[in-house]
Parts: sequence; C-alpha cells; structure tokens
Amino acid sequence: MTVCLGVDAGGTSTRAVLLTPDGTCVGYGRAGGGNPVSWGAEAAARSVAAAVSGAVSDHRARNSGVELRPLTLTGPAVLAMAGGGSAGGQDTWAAVLAGAGVTGAVRLESDLLATFCAGTPDADGYALVAGTGASAIRIAGHRVERVVDGLGWLLGDEGSGFWIGQQAVRAALAALDGRGPETTLSTSVPAALGLSGPDRRAPAALASEIGDDADGPTRVGRSETLAAAVGALYRMRPVELSRFAAAAMTAAEHDDAVAMEIVARAQERLVHSLASVHRPGHHGPVVLGGGIARRLRSLSSRVAQVAASWGPQAPQVVTVEDGSAGAAVLALRHAGFVVSGMIFDRLIATLATVRTDPV
Amino acid sequence: MTVCLGVDAGGTSTRAVLLTPDGTCVGYGRAGGGNPVSWGAEAAARSVAAAVSGAVSDHRARNSGVELRPLTLTGPAVLAMAGGGSAGGQDTWAAVLAGAGVTGAVRLESDLLATFCAGTPDADGYALVAGTGASAIRIAGHRVERVVDGLGWLLGDEGSGFWIGQQAVRAALAALDGRGPETTLSTSVPAALGLSGPDRRAPAALASEIGDDADGPTRVGRSETLAAAVGALYRMRPVELSRFAAAAMTAAEHDDAVAMEIVARAQERLVHSLASVHRPGHHGPVVLGGGIARRLRSLSSRVAQVAASWGPQAPQVVTVEDGSAGAAVLALRHAGFVVSGMIFDRLIATLATVRTDPV
Repeated sequence: MTVCLGVDAGGTSTRAVLLTPDGTCVGYGRAGGGNPVSWGAEAAARSVAAAVSGAVSDHRARNSGVELRPLTLTGPAVLAMAGGGSAGGQDTWAAVLAGAGVTGAVRLESDLLATFCAGTPDADGYALVAGTGASAIRIAGHRVERVVDGLGWLLGDEGSGFWIGQQAVRAALAALDGRGPETTLSTSVPAALGLSGPDRRAPAALASEIGDDADGPTRVGRSETLAAAVGALYRMRPVELSRFAAAAMTAAEHDDAVAMEIVARAQERLVHSLASVHRPGHHGPVVLGGGIARRLRSLSSRVAQVAASWGPQAPQVVTVEDGSAGAAVLALRHAGFVVSGMIFDRLIATLATVRTDPV
Repeated sequence: MTVCLGVDAGGTSTRAVLLTPDGTCVGYGRAGGGNPVSWGAEAAARSVAAAVSGAVSDHRARNSGVELRPLTLTGPAVLAMAGGGSAGGQDTWAAVLAGAGVTGAVRLESDLLATFCAGTPDADGYALVAGTGASAIRIAGHRVERVVDGLGWLLGDEGSGFWIGQQAVRAALAALDGRGPETTLSTSVPAALGLSGPDRRAPAALASEIGDDADGPTRVGRSETLAAAVGALYRMRPVELSRFAAAAMTAAEHDDAVAMEIVARAQERLVHSLASVHRPGHHGPVVLGGGIARRLRSLSSRVAQVAASWGPQAPQVVTVEDGSAGAAVLALRHAGFVVSGMIFDRLIATLATVRTDPV
C-alpha cells in the first residue's frame, strides 16, 4: 500500500493525516500543541509523535488490524510548523516519527503554506492566517513568494489574537484606571483572571510605606482590582494575552462599543496586510485560516470585497479549519504525485469523514 | 552639624543629596542606574552606595576634609525609587548606606512623589512623569492621593519612552515590510541596531528548506534587513525598545510625517493621563519630569493650555531635571522640618551650584 503522511503542528493542536495518492485519507490522529516556539522542542516532539501514533493506530483499525510495522512511507513525511527550523533538523524529526512507528524522511514546511494548500490545489494565490499571530502570504508555483507581517507579538502581528487580546486588556485596565471609556471588558478581563469585577469604591487606601508592599507602587492610589489584575498579567508570558481575544470578540458580539472598535480595527489591519501582499496581475484563490480568521464573522465578505478589485474575475475566498489537509497535499507533492482538483476534493471529503467518524 | 540625606535612584542614574535644614546642599554624589526593577537588587544597591559615598566625599571636601566618620543623619535618609519594595526592606537599605559611611534609618518613597517635590514645596498639585514609563499623579497633603497609568510597557505607560520606541520600531518594520508608509525610521532603526539601511532589492531568495535556517520562516519571502532587524530586536528585552524613542523624536524634529504622528499621539496620551488624574476643585502646580517629558518641546505649553481650564487661576507648570531635590525635600520633612518656599528656593539654588561646581 502506497501511503503518505502530512502533519500540521499548530499552537493548540497537532494533526497527522495518512493518505493514498488518490487523496483518500486512510488514518487520522490528533494531539496537543506541537509548535516548538510556544511549547519547547521536547513537548512539540511528544505532540507530533502522539498525533502520528494516533494516525497509525487509526489506519490499522480501519484495515482490520493488519500489521504493517513499521509503516514505510512513499516520499518524505511533511511536517508543517512555524519555527520548525529552531527545533532541530529534519533528521531529528525523522527519529521522532520512527519512534511513533513510521519510517521515512521528513520535510519541514511552512504552516502558512499548509494553510493555503488546505484550501485549494491551485499553484498560485494568497492566504491570510490569523491565530495568535497574523501573516499574509502570496503563493506562486506552489511556493511562498512573499510574506507580509508575521513579525510576532512585540513587533507586528497586526490584527492577530495577541493584538486583539492586548488591546482588550489595555482597554479594560484603562477603564479601571479612570482614563478610558467604560467597557464590559473591565469586568470580563478581571473575571477571566479569577478576580472579582471592578470595585467602584474609592481607590485603595494609600500604603503608608511602599517598602512594605511586594507589588510596589502599583498598590498606591489605585483600585484593588486594577492592582491585582496588573500583578496577575505580568506573571503571565506576554504572548498569553492572546487568550483575551475571545473576551473581546464576545463583548463585540454583545455590542460593547470599545470591543467593537478593537475587533473592527483588527479586521481592517488583517485586510490591509492581505492587500499589501497582493501583486497586480497575480491571481488565485484567497485562503483564510487560523482561529481569529474563523471567528471574525465579516472577514470573509470583507476580503471578497477587497479582492474583487484585483482583476476582472473576483477570486474565490475559502476559510479552512486548519492546515492538516494542506500538510497532506504537500506530502503527496513531495512524493512526486500531482494533486488534481479531483484528488484534492477526495482528500477534503474523506478527511472530514475520518475526523467525524472515529473507528 | 545637622544633616539630612535624600537619594533619587532612577533607571539611568542615581543622585544623592546631603543638605542642612535651611535647604543648603552640602554634598552631592552621582552614580549609575539604581532602579532594582531594571538593574536587579545588587546593582541597584551598588549604585546607591556609590552615589552616597560620592556625596559624603563631596561634603568632606567642601568642609576642608573635616572627618565626621561615620556621618550621622538627622531623621531617616529618603530613598526615592520605583519598585523599591521589591528590593528588600528599609533595613537592607540602611545596611547599604552604612557601608557607604552614613548611619541612620532609611525611608523608601515613590519616585513619582520625589519628582513632584523637586518642582514645588506645595502640599497639593499634580505631576506627569514620562521616562521609560509614564504616570500621572495627584498630590494632596504632601502624599500621593491617586496614580493614573504607570502600568508598565505591556499594559499601559501610554505615551512613554517605551510606547514611542515600540511605535517607532513597528512603523520602521511595517515600512520595510511593504505594508506601512515610507519613513526615515526604516533607515534609522536598523542603523541603531548596527544593520545597514533598507535594501530596496527584491525580497531575499526563498530558503529552499525552512529547516536549514535557524531564524526559520522570518527569512522566507522577506528582505534581509527586515529579517535581521526582527532577529536582533527579539534578542533584546522588550522594555529596551524604549531606546528607539530618541530616533522617533529626532525623525519628528526633521519633519518625518510618520514620526511626527507617533510623537504627537504620545503627547496627547500623556496629557490625557494628566487630565484623568485631575479632581475638580483640587488645585496646585503641575510638575513635569522624566526624559521624554523634557524632550517633548510642546508638552509644557500643551499642559498649561489643558490646566488653564481647571480653575479660575491657571496653575504653574514646572519641568524638573530629576527627582533629587524632591528626595532632599522629603528627607527634611521626614526629619520633622517644614520646607518653606525660601528653604525650597535655597535648595534648588545651592543644589544647582554644587552640581555644576564640583570640588
């Protein structure tokens, strides 16, 4: 049996897909976060191994327990991840896969490219990926030709989950601090930190001596909730502010004006990054991926509106669940197979079945 | 001889002032950064000890070498610093001072309060302090009654040196990334990092394999300068982005539209924080302090304009060099002396003389 393997290692979960050259998904496994930048190399390797083991077990169960140990791949396994380069070379990853019962070489690929390939078999086009981070890419001849943004939480990632989360937290604290407009975020952000809502009492009594207080001047002349929230937030890693994006989007859906403004600005920045990566005359579908892109209700129609001006024919706009189908497509290509529209459609359909119908 | 000691331990330098109850400065010493949050407790202690030793030596030299070892203070020494509470208690600091030849108790005070007290002997008023961070405070009865902002680089500090520096860096990178307007910052920021100016060539050739490249996907489809700058910036501590505030202010002074916009927005945010700390009916002078406040050319007049609406009489707006005179004033007060206008004026005059006329 000729089998290829694609693995999509994301910040939240890792997904492994075994498939045959006609696009039929014959095994699927899922595990925790597999991004070495977020989780460290060891944890990422554990997640990748667990997802691959799961796909192998699933494959055997679907084939009535036929023993194929070790499973030998046709062509290299494709491992799509951000920061794959910093987690050791392809040989290291091949050893991780061998430990999970799969023999073969490994090819590291961009998670952004995998997102594009999960939405279309076309050689050219664009992708806008907004999760914790945010990037726009242009694809030409099946390869990434240009990346815009994706510069990380401190320097870029405009409109990303981190960006929205940080804006939401800053707006919540500004309201508690008496210098920003009222917003329900001033209740929901402290609540998400396990603190009670905003205290509307006068600022906390002045500490008589700063030296008595481990939190220092944050406690002087401020409300208890504000001081406690600031302390709790600085004990987190900065990038974890991305988890407050959900609070912002919920508040925006409930007509909180401050949150609506943050979410609208995020969407415009994402669309701006996509528009910046566009090259006149370069056509193809636009693939949207990542948790934020999926959650932004009007992003797809806004992108379609912007992309309609790019040429005589408005490009197709596709939103994908994750990059696992793309990693599988890349695995087929690296094994020398051509991925036709029919093969691509079969992959999407059989992958959906395997995902929703575990053995 | 009755002598008091005030020490102002800031992020960039530490200053120690010995003075008599009539406000005459009789010794002055200066050393490196003494903020435990920025430099760690040990380095901060070394700087405080060096500044105090310097003030004691200066005092002896001015008194023709009269030996007064150890120098016994009237009342506690005042040590004004941000985050003093995290660097051990007042007893720890008393031991540091003893090592520098001064016997006495130590009283930790807010650096923000010292800034206010460096500008006026009044009991009530306001201060706006903008250096690496940014805070506005309201003073009532010689004590801090309310603080607005000062929430640190990740959560607040709107309009601060960090805020300006980060905005400048993000604007520089956005221009290099092809998604932001042209700005001279795209040359000056890489230059400040020791990199050459923006390369106007096509984006770097695609890395054939992400796995080969330690910087990972930052190198794919991006200019070399952008990739190198991003790498260099993430190797710095986030708060160090404040050092790019100078580049932004220089660019703004040379009519760079992007930098002018950043600096103008910073100033408005600082003024907004000050306006937010104002309480109707609470009057007094407004003291401006910190490197950013001193550098913002129109801040003083803008503050005067805003404060003019606070009451029938426009408050005095004073810009101070640092908090050393304020630490000295607080030392006099904690020793039980009343600091009249005449005593305050004598302190400012004699401190200026001692500073500019070393023995």
